[in-house]
Amino acid sequence: MLYKRVLLAVDLTDESIKVANKAATLCSSLGAELIIVHVIESLNYAYGGDVPIDITDIQKQLQDTAKERMSILQEQLDINIAETCVTQGGIESEIHRIAEEKQVDLITVGSHGRHGLALLLGSTANGVLHGAPCDVLAVRVQKEQ
Amino acid sequence: MLYKRVLLAVDLTDESIKVANKAATLCSSLGAELIIVHVIESLNYAYGGDVPIDITDIQKQLQDTAKERMSILQEQLDINIAETCVTQGGIESEIHRIAEEKQVDLITVGSHGRHGLALLLGSTANGVLHGAPCDVLAVRVQKEQ
Repeated sequence: MLYKRVLLAVDLTDESIKVANKAATLCSSLGAELIIVHVIESLNYAYGGDVPIDITDIQKQLQDTAKERMSILQEQLDINIAETCVTQGGIESEIHRIAEEKQVDLITVGSHGRHGLALLLGSTANGVLHGAPCDVLAVRVQKEQ
Repeated sequence: MLYKRVLLAVDLTDESIKVANKAATLCSSLGAELIIVHVIESLNYAYGGDVPIDITDIQKQLQDTAKERMSILQEQLDINIAETCVTQGGIESEIHRIAEEKQVDLITVGSHGRHGLALLLGSTANGVLHGAPCDVLAVRVQKEQ
């Protein structure tokens, strides 16, 4: 079997459903399990160093929002999802860690190519590719014409 | 259908067969066509600027070797290849150009992750990802243990 377990990493924006649909179709075609992960970038990571305010509430809010969006995404998909996971840390390192922990053989991420948030999201796809413990499928997200 | 036409880019080293086998299995599973391309990096690109010797013979030799290796690769695969192509130029730009010309919806490349020739080949996978007109599957090539 080509791939047994696929890890889909989503940023939970409106475009996630397009990437998720591709991953779901791929899993159906190959008979693979689909695990979906969303990484909340730690505020420490995002803003660097010490943050002089209590961020516990903000983190909690981010987590609640992420879990809600993850449920909506899951409902929109036609296939059964083996597992969903909302975690926190550095995006690439968390994706790699979970990929190893869950022993997946393919990571799927969205990629913006040269459009839109190319610099930011393109670099996430590149970052995921670099040092990944398995194959990586970058699904190109195209802007609506 | 998820992918109709897959472009596999190979460097024609011994490891190409492993990447090619994955691409072939994927195409069989999805009912997709497989096109294989090898880009000979132009000596102008590889060594920068003007080369003060006649490189016609060398280019010819590189092409002959590449075509021979491409035939061997093709014979080793279990599925029919729609098309093979040996071309010359900048690696990433040629792969993107052919992907557009052939209207493929997935590019597959080998990726060395953090091992071996990571810097060189990892960056090719990254380069292919950046600015690709379609999805990109990076197949991790692992060294034999």
